[in-house]
Amino acid sequence: MELKILNKINEPKDLKNLTVEDMKKLAGEIREVLLEKVSQDGGHLGPNLGMVEATIAMHYTFNSPIDKFVFDVSHQTYTHKILTGRKEAFINPEKYDTVTGFTNPKESEHDFFTIGHTSTGVSLASGLAKGRDILGGEENILAVVGDGSLSGGEAYEGLDNAAISKSNIIILVNDNDIAITENAGGLYENLALLRETEGKAENNIFKALGFDYYFVKDGNDIKSMIDIFEKVKDVNHPVLIHMYTLKGKGYEPAVENEEKFHWTRPFDLETGEVLGKLPESYLDIIDNFLIEKAKNDKKIVAITAATPSTVGLNKFRKVLKNQYINVGIAEEHAVAFASGIAKRKAKPVASFFSSFIQRCYDQLSQDLAINDNPATILVCGGGISGNAETHLSVFDIPLISNIPNIVYLAPTSQEELEAMMDWAIDQEKYPVIIRIPTGKVVSTGVKIKSNFYDLNKFVLDKKGEKIAIIGLGTFYSLGETVREKLIEKGFNPTLINPRFISGIDGELLEELMKNHELVITLEDGILDGGFGGKIARYYSDKPMKVLNFGAQKVFTDNVPLEELYKRYELMPEQIVEKIEKEL
Amino acid sequence: MELKILNKINEPKDLKNLTVEDMKKLAGEIREVLLEKVSQDGGHLGPNLGMVEATIAMHYTFNSPIDKFVFDVSHQTYTHKILTGRKEAFINPEKYDTVTGFTNPKESEHDFFTIGHTSTGVSLASGLAKGRDILGGEENILAVVGDGSLSGGEAYEGLDNAAISKSNIIILVNDNDIAITENAGGLYENLALLRETEGKAENNIFKALGFDYYFVKDGNDIKSMIDIFEKVKDVNHPVLIHMYTLKGKGYEPAVENEEKFHWTRPFDLETGEVLGKLPESYLDIIDNFLIEKAKNDKKIVAITAATPSTVGLNKFRKVLKNQYINVGIAEEHAVAFASGIAKRKAKPVASFFSSFIQRCYDQLSQDLAINDNPATILVCGGGISGNAETHLSVFDIPLISNIPNIVYLAPTSQEELEAMMDWAIDQEKYPVIIRIPTGKVVSTGVKIKSNFYDLNKFVLDKKGEKIAIIGLGTFYSLGETVREKLIEKGFNPTLINPRFISGIDGELLEELMKNHELVITLEDGILDGGFGGKIARYYSDKPMKVLNFGAQKVFTDNVPLEELYKRYELMPEQIVEKIEKEL
Repeated sequence: MELKILNKINEPKDLKNLTVEDMKKLAGEIREVLLEKVSQDGGHLGPNLGMVEATIAMHYTFNSPIDKFVFDVSHQTYTHKILTGRKEAFINPEKYDTVTGFTNPKESEHDFFTIGHTSTGVSLASGLAKGRDILGGEENILAVVGDGSLSGGEAYEGLDNAAISKSNIIILVNDNDIAITENAGGLYENLALLRETEGKAENNIFKALGFDYYFVKDGNDIKSMIDIFEKVKDVNHPVLIHMYTLKGKGYEPAVENEEKFHWTRPFDLETGEVLGKLPESYLDIIDNFLIEKAKNDKKIVAITAATPSTVGLNKFRKVLKNQYINVGIAEEHAVAFASGIAKRKAKPVASFFSSFIQRCYDQLSQDLAINDNPATILVCGGGISGNAETHLSVFDIPLISNIPNIVYLAPTSQEELEAMMDWAIDQEKYPVIIRIPTGKVVSTGVKIKSNFYDLNKFVLDKKGEKIAIIGLGTFYSLGETVREKLIEKGFNPTLINPRFISGIDGELLEELMKNHELVITLEDGILDGGFGGKIARYYSDKPMKVLNFGAQKVFTDNVPLEELYKRYELMPEQIVEKIEKEL
Repeated sequence: MELKILNKINEPKDLKNLTVEDMKKLAGEIREVLLEKVSQDGGHLGPNLGMVEATIAMHYTFNSPIDKFVFDVSHQTYTHKILTGRKEAFINPEKYDTVTGFTNPKESEHDFFTIGHTSTGVSLASGLAKGRDILGGEENILAVVGDGSLSGGEAYEGLDNAAISKSNIIILVNDNDIAITENAGGLYENLALLRETEGKAENNIFKALGFDYYFVKDGNDIKSMIDIFEKVKDVNHPVLIHMYTLKGKGYEPAVENEEKFHWTRPFDLETGEVLGKLPESYLDIIDNFLIEKAKNDKKIVAITAATPSTVGLNKFRKVLKNQYINVGIAEEHAVAFASGIAKRKAKPVASFFSSFIQRCYDQLSQDLAINDNPATILVCGGGISGNAETHLSVFDIPLISNIPNIVYLAPTSQEELEAMMDWAIDQEKYPVIIRIPTGKVVSTGVKIKSNFYDLNKFVLDKKGEKIAIIGLGTFYSLGETVREKLIEKGFNPTLINPRFISGIDGELLEELMKNHELVITLEDGILDGGFGGKIARYYSDKPMKVLNFGAQKVFTDNVPLEELYKRYELMPEQIVEKIEKEL
């Protein structure tokens, strides 16, 4: 790779003397760099390829960090990072890990927020603008939003408020005609109409909200972008620029398969084939099970908020199109919608990624739980992970299990998961949420026929004495390992599968007191507000010691899983050591 | 009151043979009934007076409960209740309490959901419509939304999805030119434009979303409403009717002061004066304190999501208009907006009613906590109450205190509240949330000068032995009462004010082990996921008994406060009895 121009760019001001032709060449060099890095290291490819020119034009025209850019979701900021002193992290493979995949104020003064969830950018930018006005600043505030985020309620609340502000705020809508998956909703039909008419259609949601609206038909043309930015720079009122860009631009496989390359694992640059094959996961289990069940029961409908492949609906959506609904990035709607479907006696199954279900606590409580409608909700990916701090999935247990009326279940194996889904979908009594296990699929090979009407009934799997291990969901197998190690040391521990996260089995816990002196709980989530705390509270005035194992209440950012396990003292040896100390 | 027509109406079908003239008379009778009841018993007056005619027309034209009505917020459903077999609860003072203030499926087959939070109606109705389509039903689904709800993100997500559905759904937008307070946002400017042009303006947000749009200029005219309903009944696609109604219609004081009569305590029908005067509350403390502080610091800005008078900004908004922002019903935006303002180094104070802060968990976590911006958030009304099940405020402790980085504080007196607000607003280190006490104001008369940088430092107020009482926030005074009762019985209990909800003081808890054998915790919220559980976990393997007192994880509906205290064993005698049993 020869990076003639990029080699000379170390900060935004180095752009200022380039010609448009130079900047076009720079865009080409950046694309090469992005393709090289993402093909080797994985990451968000399509969104970044689409934003190269607009980002160059932003930094050419405006004066960052005095002028402030807020990138919604911030998964499209690789070019921004390259232009703001962080190019080594993209050019030099040894430094690939020195930047995160999102904006990050700890990395650079050009980043203002850590952002990873969608639809927040306009509100955050509005805050910067208001702060500027209060303090008498004069800089431009520019929010980049799009790529599916516009369907989220927070984006609308932000636009609705930004539109009536009386000072400078520039909203750049990056319309690439695609979210993570196909777009859904009237808004996207309006965007299509505006694209067709080059912004001239009478029906225009942005004008209706009150924005001074501009359309740019080719957001991948640097000159067009510089022109529009020069025009709106230093405006004294809210402005919205609607630009059309090509997601994946410059890499044919990413243009042809926008979804596959929205975020990708490492791939062969030549063929576009992703390297390595993922082993079967619990997402496959969900997918296969739901397809089989829904084929035979047309009352079943599967719902996703724009992320079918991370919530076990990847095959379902192709095989059973008529029983599949993608509501777009709109988690709040998804939950209320499912509640309404269940009320009308059909069978909704709405599946979410754990970190994103955080967006609809109030809907789970008000629209679903108070109304006690028997919808089935799946929570995928829950548990400790090496994810970015914006995508942690360790908070769902405190969030969900403390809502009245909701039955929150934690299966420990493929068969138990299938039995729980089967029951949840057919029963008509409770809102049921299932925490899908993560990691390697555990299969016992023995079909489970039980139902789960007998709420909060724990299962005593191995009857022992002195020590009782309660292993929740994914951590049941950790419980098995710990038990084996304790057996080696001459103990005979009891092992319990609690199955229910949202309540405890007082009878069984009482029974344990007869011949146990220590109960340990294992949960794959934070301890504060969690499952183990309920056990600790149960025994708090009784002669039983309790040790809770789980994650700490902290945001961790791309810390490897094994390191987190060690830090949280969740390695089997660490657990055994702590147990021995207690006895 | 002579109720010539209403006397003959016991169910919707009794309307079918009335003439329009009769229905107008019926509307007059219903208004009289509403005014009589609400003036005596309190309730939502303005929204109900505005919806009388439209509701009569709905029941005249459609066939409830086969055709299904979903009322957003459902505080405008008194006429609906009167027409669906529940008129006695409005006419007969002895039966006033036999219905709730919201729709309630337990009361009537004409009600489909328990709803009390705004902006959910379109999504819930979309679910009913989808369920109908799956099961091959043919009924009409009609959602009534408006009165400020349209600014909420969930309403937009619902509209965005409803607009592209391929079958019958009728959205009735009740545009009364007012939310609870003044409207805010570009949407409301668009509604005003549409009213002025009788729906003909080019800029039309509903058409932009794809709806088949109809405008009714007088939604209080029964004939107009019947005409439009006849026209859209049984349509095969999404339709949106935008009607203009007069909030408070028929009662001059309610028209003139729409906010005062949105919800009102009992009042003098003649003069419109509210009966009785409320004692000084913690909301007054907030209001007065913020006004004084903000007068001297122009960097301070107070933010509400449309409910200034229930969050301590009633005077503030009038006295310091330039430092006051009402973002409309848009809690998600409010939190992200505050985070952005704090990032830009101004000083936002965003105040919420506890039950409504549930709408922005993800924004508290992602937009605020991960970014660690020093915004101040106030949570008002938190604690056990006799409220409707949709307005309980017992869930904020599990919700907020288990988010990393957030400092959640619980003041026990006026002076401590003031010290906490003072510190929170000026410090630049943490996102701080303060749980405003409820009930009678406790004033020590002694100004507190301390800061709260020393996180999770509990205060040992009375040093005793054997029993330690940890009384959180509002329940600190309950702790004092319990302590006195124990002293009478010859004990000498320790009393602790923890101040921090989001963490524990390990050092102090360790110290207690020297000469205590029982720690009791008192918190005004649910125990599951709460504060006491953290204490129980701390001592779970140590020789200390712990008893947690607080609310159970259940939805309670208009249960009197004292009954709840008894049920949760929170009466001082009950607590003392349980303590004695332990020793």
